[in-house]
Amino acid sequence: MLVTIEMKVTKTPNPECPIGRAHENVGEWWSILILRDAFQGMTRFDEFRQSLGIAPSILTRRLAHLTACGMFDRRSYSKKPPRDEYVLTAKGRDFFPVIASLFAWGNRHLAPEGAALFLVQRETRKKLHPVVVDARSLEPILLETTGVVAGPAASPAMQRRLAQLQANAAQKH
Amino acid sequence: MLVTIEMKVTKTPNPECPIGRAHENVGEWWSILILRDAFQGMTRFDEFRQSLGIAPSILTRRLAHLTACGMFDRRSYSKKPPRDEYVLTAKGRDFFPVIASLFAWGNRHLAPEGAALFLVQRETRKKLHPVVVDARSLEPILLETTGVVAGPAASPAMQRRLAQLQANAAQKH
Repeated sequence: MLVTIEMKVTKTPNPECPIGRAHENVGEWWSILILRDAFQGMTRFDEFRQSLGIAPSILTRRLAHLTACGMFDRRSYSKKPPRDEYVLTAKGRDFFPVIASLFAWGNRHLAPEGAALFLVQRETRKKLHPVVVDARSLEPILLETTGVVAGPAASPAMQRRLAQLQANAAQKH
Repeated sequence: MLVTIEMKVTKTPNPECPIGRAHENVGEWWSILILRDAFQGMTRFDEFRQSLGIAPSILTRRLAHLTACGMFDRRSYSKKPPRDEYVLTAKGRDFFPVIASLFAWGNRHLAPEGAALFLVQRETRKKLHPVVVDARSLEPILLETTGVVAGPAASPAMQRRLAQLQANAAQKH
């Protein structure tokens, strides 16, 4: 297992890339595990702490970061004693499909002894097999058939990066 | 941006969970960014280093870890001078849909000024909109309608965890 320590450095690699930005929001794996637990219904500090065996100071910092990033709303659930809970926002709930696709990859490649957990449709209890498809064509999104192009907000630096990637690929093949 | 330092600790939280296991394989965000770059065709140490602005010692460790986990094959591409490259394995390539779903989430929630990058179908250049669906029904997999159940490899501890989650949820609602 990894324990991570945050340090500020001056440069964010490739800040326009949506993966790079996601890294700034949930870019520490405790965040992923906290979100996983939130998706299973946990909202309270002690629930997360017990589930993750995480140091309280790290959990406090991660919950504050996820709240500041707009993944959680912090709400009071008890006045005496004063207690808050962390409730997923729309942005936080929208992260669920990412976790579902990670779940599928984990079950496929990391469970040689068989799956310990399955995702199911809640009402029917039918097993779900998450795949990532294009919303319109419903065709699977695979590395072999997918490329990246600049969008309207791409800077000249991003345009150069994409051109460089194409040049490098052409040179190798 | 986060820089992470690895430390060994004794307890892996919830080791049977496929997300917890994924955490052990790619559980450090440099790994995600390295995979992102590999999916764009990078294979060489200097390509990753230039793209990420990452310290060589960290990059060396991350590439070694991803190779040990079976995400990359290390292959020689030059005898004089001796140079290796890192080529994605099937397991590594299968991680692409996870990145695609993360990409979609990033574009949706973290690009208020508009997208700098789009995923496209490589041949037609049509924009792709990644969504996570069930492979059989093609219905979107959403938090509201998804649950988790024990699989054949679930330990008694995992069974207890799931029962506890249900009890907690019932108590809150």
